[in-house]
Amino acid sequence: MSDASSLVRPIIRKLHGYVPGEQPKIPGLIKLNTNENPYPPSPKVLKAVKAAVDGRFRLYPNPSADRLRAKLAVYHHCKPENIIVGNGSDELLALATRVFVEPNAVIQYFTPSYSLYPVLADIHGATRNPVPLNPDFTIPTADDLRRDGKWNFDAPLTFVTTPNAPSGRAYATADLERLSNAHKGTMILDEAYANFAKEDALNLALQFPHVIVARTFSKGYSLCFLRVGYFVGHAELIAALHKARDSYNVNGLGQIAAEAALEDLPYYRKNFRRILGTRARVIAELAELGFETMPSQTNFILTHPPAFPAAEWLEKLRGEKILVRWWSYPEVRDYLRITIGTDREMDTFLKVARRLLKPSAQNTKRLRRK
Amino acid sequence: MSDASSLVRPIIRKLHGYVPGEQPKIPGLIKLNTNENPYPPSPKVLKAVKAAVDGRFRLYPNPSADRLRAKLAVYHHCKPENIIVGNGSDELLALATRVFVEPNAVIQYFTPSYSLYPVLADIHGATRNPVPLNPDFTIPTADDLRRDGKWNFDAPLTFVTTPNAPSGRAYATADLERLSNAHKGTMILDEAYANFAKEDALNLALQFPHVIVARTFSKGYSLCFLRVGYFVGHAELIAALHKARDSYNVNGLGQIAAEAALEDLPYYRKNFRRILGTRARVIAELAELGFETMPSQTNFILTHPPAFPAAEWLEKLRGEKILVRWWSYPEVRDYLRITIGTDREMDTFLKVARRLLKPSAQNTKRLRRK
Repeated sequence: MSDASSLVRPIIRKLHGYVPGEQPKIPGLIKLNTNENPYPPSPKVLKAVKAAVDGRFRLYPNPSADRLRAKLAVYHHCKPENIIVGNGSDELLALATRVFVEPNAVIQYFTPSYSLYPVLADIHGATRNPVPLNPDFTIPTADDLRRDGKWNFDAPLTFVTTPNAPSGRAYATADLERLSNAHKGTMILDEAYANFAKEDALNLALQFPHVIVARTFSKGYSLCFLRVGYFVGHAELIAALHKARDSYNVNGLGQIAAEAALEDLPYYRKNFRRILGTRARVIAELAELGFETMPSQTNFILTHPPAFPAAEWLEKLRGEKILVRWWSYPEVRDYLRITIGTDREMDTFLKVARRLLKPSAQNTKRLRRK
Repeated sequence: MSDASSLVRPIIRKLHGYVPGEQPKIPGLIKLNTNENPYPPSPKVLKAVKAAVDGRFRLYPNPSADRLRAKLAVYHHCKPENIIVGNGSDELLALATRVFVEPNAVIQYFTPSYSLYPVLADIHGATRNPVPLNPDFTIPTADDLRRDGKWNFDAPLTFVTTPNAPSGRAYATADLERLSNAHKGTMILDEAYANFAKEDALNLALQFPHVIVARTFSKGYSLCFLRVGYFVGHAELIAALHKARDSYNVNGLGQIAAEAALEDLPYYRKNFRRILGTRARVIAELAELGFETMPSQTNFILTHPPAFPAAEWLEKLRGEKILVRWWSYPEVRDYLRITIGTDREMDTFLKVARRLLKPSAQNTKRLRRK
């Protein structure tokens, strides 16, 4: 018999797992750290799910989410064969590494972007190829990338988050099209935040055989809890992903909720407009306080706070029961990532920010916390 | 730009995916093909899920199913650190291949058993080592396996389904303990059907550092639809699995349903007894008709039908809107696997079986189907 840890593969043993944002249950907490939608799903979604809470739980769900895929195909003007649904888009991103990348081959992504990608590369035993975005987080052109030499145009898998997290910036579809044209390996355009952007690149997934677009019901459709995401892409790539996924990978209530969401798009469109309105107002009011905020096409902002370091803001805001996100890595350690909450939540946040910026208030606060 | 299929890894391209049992939606169908529980989940489970259908859908679920793990730890007399919850136990079985097996190394299992294992080996690029059970589907002893020479005691991952599917046979814990003792690599005792058996081997997972027990809420607790399974094992193995899983792998309603199920065990125990009663009766009545049935400790039976081949029974039963399972591979092609349904469903099945056995009735039937 062997010591337990020796049973684990060395690549997993030395793995630093992905650290999701905190999900604490503190009464009165304002949670602006994991880019959840501040508004509930459509009442029609809740009604459809409630109506499905019955004896059918004993049965397996549809193994390939056929009804949902049919609806998505109508929505995106493609065929169900172009779509695979996952247990959140995270499941599909991980699945893609196993379907497209030989162990030891390259998984490529821009930095900073979704911090899950390097973890997926490590889990798969792939070689990471992180390529820096421009210093203002815009995307380098295909020509720049070629000149620079770091980008691998033959990499079997490349992740591009657009609009990007944590920067909030979107990339123009024309730029993504040029990149797709220059590229040989599979490229996943991770559009988790597309609902909050001016344009999206979904058509590239139907135009190029090597481009896949990833979407999720989590953020735009307020369904994080139920875990539903999907890929759109060439039928051969999608078929390969289907072969390698778990047989019943999408729970039945998630399928029902996502179907119902697609039946009530007006509700969600109103919701998106509302979040965009709040976003514009918050960016403007923060600017008056000295925050420098990246242009955002998402439901969050990346902002450079004034007066004291971002890490200190994180802690002080937490002391006021406001949770935002901060990372220690160099490109973003001077920034906070703040989810756009309801107007009321953002008003509280702005009020607290104003207070924290008054030196006297800071001292009082410090004494009170002792 | 490359042709789409060339982007897919060769091991995935040549993969024959797992084929789940059919889930047709035919009114009046008697579905005895995928081992679902014929009874609904506890009313308390439905109530708990219904009460959670609200604005919380917008939030991510607990990423590590902490409350459910705490309850499971109490139930199994272990620590939450000994438990990982998955999107069905299938997710965890696949995850185990990635955590414990180097590509090209060996994944081992008895045949016949759960037909997913060879698929998981293929997806991972591992070498399959299928080792035959005894002809009556009992498990060879460690000594027999050593003499026979096919079994690899150092295989990094071995799956043992107990009670076994599709045979329905359970293996004595004492035998599994001897096998564990002789074994060096990680061994997963897949106890999806433990709720219907006389004994289970859960303690081996707490006793041996290299033994993991897999359980599911699907069958025993009538929760297939919501996808909740779990592993119990040594904290170091469990920690490694946690590192490599998707961050939010278990949907929130699944977590709530499973927690509520553990709060109403008397309901489920009554349900298990009922299924065992029906099973005994069906086996006895089938014996009178000439069916030879394996001893079963599961909610299904593997039975050798009389009069005509099993494949023909499959088709004839389907013609009567009764769905059972049949495989073409040699060890089981003479058998039908039949899930134990409600008493009423089984009465219909028995009535139809009796009719199909009357030669005149068969002919009438054939004419009618033209």
